[in-house]
Amino acid sequence: MSVQTTTKSRMAGAREVIARCEALAKFSEDTNSLRRTFLSPPMHNCHAAVYSWLKSAGVSVRIDAAGNLRGFYPGADPKSPRMLIGSHLDTVPNAGKYDGMLGVVLAIALLEELDGTRLPFGIEVVGFSEEEGVRFGVPFIGSRALVGRIDPDLLQRRDYNGISVREAIQQFGLDDKQLGAATLDGNVLGYLEFHIEQGPVLEKLERQLGIVEALVGQTRLAVQFFGKTNHAGTTPMEARHDALAGAAEWMVAIESRAKQIPGLVATVGFIEAKPGATNVIPGEVRLSLDVRHRSDEVRMSAVRELTELAEGIAKKRGLLAQWNALLEQASVLLDEFLADQIESAIRLAGCEPHRMTSGAGHDAMILAEQVPSAMVFLRSPGGISHDPAETVLLEDVEKAIDCGVHLLSRLAASQEFLGRKSRA
Amino acid sequence: MSVQTTTKSRMAGAREVIARCEALAKFSEDTNSLRRTFLSPPMHNCHAAVYSWLKSAGVSVRIDAAGNLRGFYPGADPKSPRMLIGSHLDTVPNAGKYDGMLGVVLAIALLEELDGTRLPFGIEVVGFSEEEGVRFGVPFIGSRALVGRIDPDLLQRRDYNGISVREAIQQFGLDDKQLGAATLDGNVLGYLEFHIEQGPVLEKLERQLGIVEALVGQTRLAVQFFGKTNHAGTTPMEARHDALAGAAEWMVAIESRAKQIPGLVATVGFIEAKPGATNVIPGEVRLSLDVRHRSDEVRMSAVRELTELAEGIAKKRGLLAQWNALLEQASVLLDEFLADQIESAIRLAGCEPHRMTSGAGHDAMILAEQVPSAMVFLRSPGGISHDPAETVLLEDVEKAIDCGVHLLSRLAASQEFLGRKSRA
Repeated sequence: MSVQTTTKSRMAGAREVIARCEALAKFSEDTNSLRRTFLSPPMHNCHAAVYSWLKSAGVSVRIDAAGNLRGFYPGADPKSPRMLIGSHLDTVPNAGKYDGMLGVVLAIALLEELDGTRLPFGIEVVGFSEEEGVRFGVPFIGSRALVGRIDPDLLQRRDYNGISVREAIQQFGLDDKQLGAATLDGNVLGYLEFHIEQGPVLEKLERQLGIVEALVGQTRLAVQFFGKTNHAGTTPMEARHDALAGAAEWMVAIESRAKQIPGLVATVGFIEAKPGATNVIPGEVRLSLDVRHRSDEVRMSAVRELTELAEGIAKKRGLLAQWNALLEQASVLLDEFLADQIESAIRLAGCEPHRMTSGAGHDAMILAEQVPSAMVFLRSPGGISHDPAETVLLEDVEKAIDCGVHLLSRLAASQEFLGRKSRA
Repeated sequence: MSVQTTTKSRMAGAREVIARCEALAKFSEDTNSLRRTFLSPPMHNCHAAVYSWLKSAGVSVRIDAAGNLRGFYPGADPKSPRMLIGSHLDTVPNAGKYDGMLGVVLAIALLEELDGTRLPFGIEVVGFSEEEGVRFGVPFIGSRALVGRIDPDLLQRRDYNGISVREAIQQFGLDDKQLGAATLDGNVLGYLEFHIEQGPVLEKLERQLGIVEALVGQTRLAVQFFGKTNHAGTTPMEARHDALAGAAEWMVAIESRAKQIPGLVATVGFIEAKPGATNVIPGEVRLSLDVRHRSDEVRMSAVRELTELAEGIAKKRGLLAQWNALLEQASVLLDEFLADQIESAIRLAGCEPHRMTSGAGHDAMILAEQVPSAMVFLRSPGGISHDPAETVLLEDVEKAIDCGVHLLSRLAASQEFLGRKSRA
């Protein structure tokens, strides 16, 4: 393959990438903001758009039984092994336009750069159906399907409207009995994911692209406080068992403790008080807790401490505190060989690379269980993400395409890469 | 009229009252619990049931333009003045069966006790459409209509689904242009409301019935904290502007301060964090604050202090705090003459009366603006209300009917009562 494409065309490619992210952002469950959760109706439109772009690039496309979009660009030989490039197509509520989508659209841009050139490996573009964990409270449903980790418990999990994962798959027009066919075979050389950093590090260092060496571990808990519903006007302060007052005390303790542990982040992102009326003392509160740290030990010890705090607060107030873990994700090391290759490719693109840890979870965490996996971060202006103000710079996208083309070219020539066996 | 009904029949009447409360509790917006908000579809069924009972008692019924059910039992003379007896038919979410409904059903029981006997005044049974303030965040919409206090601002207020009060009236099949016809004329002698206490006082004193002398004032605020939405994994604790963490600190301060002011109650009953995903730092929190005290001065000073605390917390954290008052209800004194008559009637029923202040707001607060108003409390077992465990004792209902019959008999013979002029 040739990497001698002119800067002019690469800039046009970067513009197209941004235009496509903007186009995908229009497919939303909400009227005035972007929310496209797992297997929601607008995901059909999103698939149709990605399909049309891949089709023009001569790529065959299927939607697997977990709702992942999979486009295959063949290698030089029908028996060539494959490399996966992708990211996710679902979003959080009130989302930005680049988290996830950028990585899928960049994969398409790389195929367009190849322009029919055959490599000694095929490339499978993957648009994962679910990474954010919004609809069912557990993330990575899409990538779990590729590593065969969709178990019956997960299929029975229900969303806020009582629809199970299995029913959601069927309602989207897919066949849950075909989930087995979504898993990877042994012929996969690696997984590459481009993603916005979603944090302030690269911007502060004035670097355009980063190499992710590891992803922090995370725990997600669903927590409930149970107290006693009663009338807000006739129940004296001393006689209350207010579940929300208990939850508030706990939230203050979480923030205070998290600030004392270097590198730890702990977040309550969701809360609901029941029955939820102005004049009723809440008898029940449901809330989420998200805890992350690069050290699994530090994280697990913090989670233990925070749940003990919840128990202590509940006991003192005559409440009951309960929790269950929706996610226990160990920190994950990515592939060193691919990281080295990316570092060289970033230099060839004329940038100074930066090696870093990701504070966010990504599909690469899951894929890394079975295939050598790698991630490239693009700088996030203002460090803003999960917000409509989330953005990416045109010149950084251009460098990402440049880096990707150099990387594919290096991998195509690497006997070490081509000789690797995946664990799938 | 005769008050010589046998104890046996009065006990049967009490059983019927409880059976009717249970029947009305079946008309709900929710499948497994009772929620019947202002002009919701199940209110039609509730009206139909009340209509059928009133019809059997020879009472003509209409639904006024605010959705209040109004049944008229004529007096001895077509020109006789009227007395109102009633309570509300709406509920909180996950409600009990007696808050509101009991007062309407007891009014019907009194008409059945009259059994066609004509008094020197007519009796209008009122089932108010809205008292709890759940759907539109402002309470007393039903009773406001009777005193002519439904203004254009209130009609434009919107519920969670964006439906305005005016639209809700129309969707229920009513004509908002007829709201004027819902207001009271000058021919009203007074308003009487039976209601469960919803607190622990009568039970502790071992009294069955209480006379309400005054109702506490209340302030209801809608409060918002605005911060900055960001990624829960990549944003260090120090770099956050977490609206929910700020709201939690405020909720802890509210509880702590309320406990220091004797007789004050302050409650956060509703909270929502946006966007509301596990892995997103909340950029916005909406919550309610309900503050009550018998002294308007103490209440207003506490509200001032609590909103200043919100401002201080927001400033310290780089958040913005905003609030607006959904309700500013001054404490209300009820009618002394009627309270004295009720006291006598309770003694005639063989009970020891107790004079008290209501910690809850009631329709009588609003009616008292224009007509002499009175309330009788029935003991609340366990002090429990706004909860499915809310209940009332059969023997207390029997005494309430007894008290009501004695009261009507005394008022029918009172020249002072019959000579009174309402302010309507």
